[in-house]
Amino acid sequence: MNKVITITRQYGSGGREIGRKLAEAYDIPFYDNEIIARAAKETGFAEAAFERAEDKATNSLLYSIAMGMNVFSNQDAGMSALSLDDRIFLAQSNVIRKVAEEGPCVIVGRCADYILKDRSDVINLFIGASVDSRIQRSIEIDMLPENRAAEIVLKKDKSRGNYYKYHSGERWDNVFNYDMALRSDRCGIDGTVECIRAYLDRM
Amino acid sequence: MNKVITITRQYGSGGREIGRKLAEAYDIPFYDNEIIARAAKETGFAEAAFERAEDKATNSLLYSIAMGMNVFSNQDAGMSALSLDDRIFLAQSNVIRKVAEEGPCVIVGRCADYILKDRSDVINLFIGASVDSRIQRSIEIDMLPENRAAEIVLKKDKSRGNYYKYHSGERWDNVFNYDMALRSDRCGIDGTVECIRAYLDRM
Repeated sequence: MNKVITITRQYGSGGREIGRKLAEAYDIPFYDNEIIARAAKETGFAEAAFERAEDKATNSLLYSIAMGMNVFSNQDAGMSALSLDDRIFLAQSNVIRKVAEEGPCVIVGRCADYILKDRSDVINLFIGASVDSRIQRSIEIDMLPENRAAEIVLKKDKSRGNYYKYHSGERWDNVFNYDMALRSDRCGIDGTVECIRAYLDRM
Repeated sequence: MNKVITITRQYGSGGREIGRKLAEAYDIPFYDNEIIARAAKETGFAEAAFERAEDKATNSLLYSIAMGMNVFSNQDAGMSALSLDDRIFLAQSNVIRKVAEEGPCVIVGRCADYILKDRSDVINLFIGASVDSRIQRSIEIDMLPENRAAEIVLKKDKSRGNYYKYHSGERWDNVFNYDMALRSDRCGIDGTVECIRAYLDRM
């Protein structure tokens, strides 16, 4: 396996677990929330800084590093209006590019397919599932309250779509973005992992 | 294999050949252009009638049958403005529903996924491929002239998208439409067939 695998997934589809199992099967690194930790570490900020309320400070060290600037050079005041969200996204994008550069890995979420679109060694996967199965899974695995699970699942769908659209300008549900897209509820998490491996191993 | 498999495909992706090979592997019927022939036969019209220039005749026998009407009953004058295209689509839709009712099969194109969306035994596949590989294939297999292949491939993409949109009101490139979507140029026609079988056999 000499590919960088990105996974875009609907909430409750098991896409994260599928990614983790793929990474284990190929013995390659797996990045999900770890990306935030790594981004924080790389940029010299505590992880907590990424979770603070919006910070309007301009020309921050974080932003400079995220933009790949030399922090000792003059900074571009024209970009100072970037929100903390944008700066976090830029910092994460740099981390994603860096781990992809380091070698084969699995990266879940965070528009990784879009961020890495100019690389030729990337395989983009989409994992979905029926709404019913995702509600069920979110109750079982994420312990969502039964009476609110449906509402939360639909809200998460919307916010993931919005996040992708906001940062990439594209629709996350465009089938042409992906090398392979699968509904995980047709043959379960392990069955889905096997199908993806069947595809990757035939390349 | 106890499923009805629909295949939506980009021109030049090999989706039709993949469908034929799947049908052979499972020893189930395969429907593509045959659908037109069958529709024509079922409705008692010569196949050529489907290819005639637009026919504005109202309340035709074909239309009546396509709508599932009793041809001996009073007909609905309100629907008389339907174009020949619409009436052909309706006739084909009835045939698609009929063959799905008869049992497992593979149906390529013609919005079959949309037409059969209320059945629970249907698996919807999407086959795509890179533009470059589709241009190459269209030159080799369909004998398109090299200097016009790119233009024709892009035009076909557009017209298939428009056809789907016109008849279903939906986008054909919506990943949520499909149980599985694959780029066929990643592991070739036979490799893609094997991947799909790996998925179907695990259900």
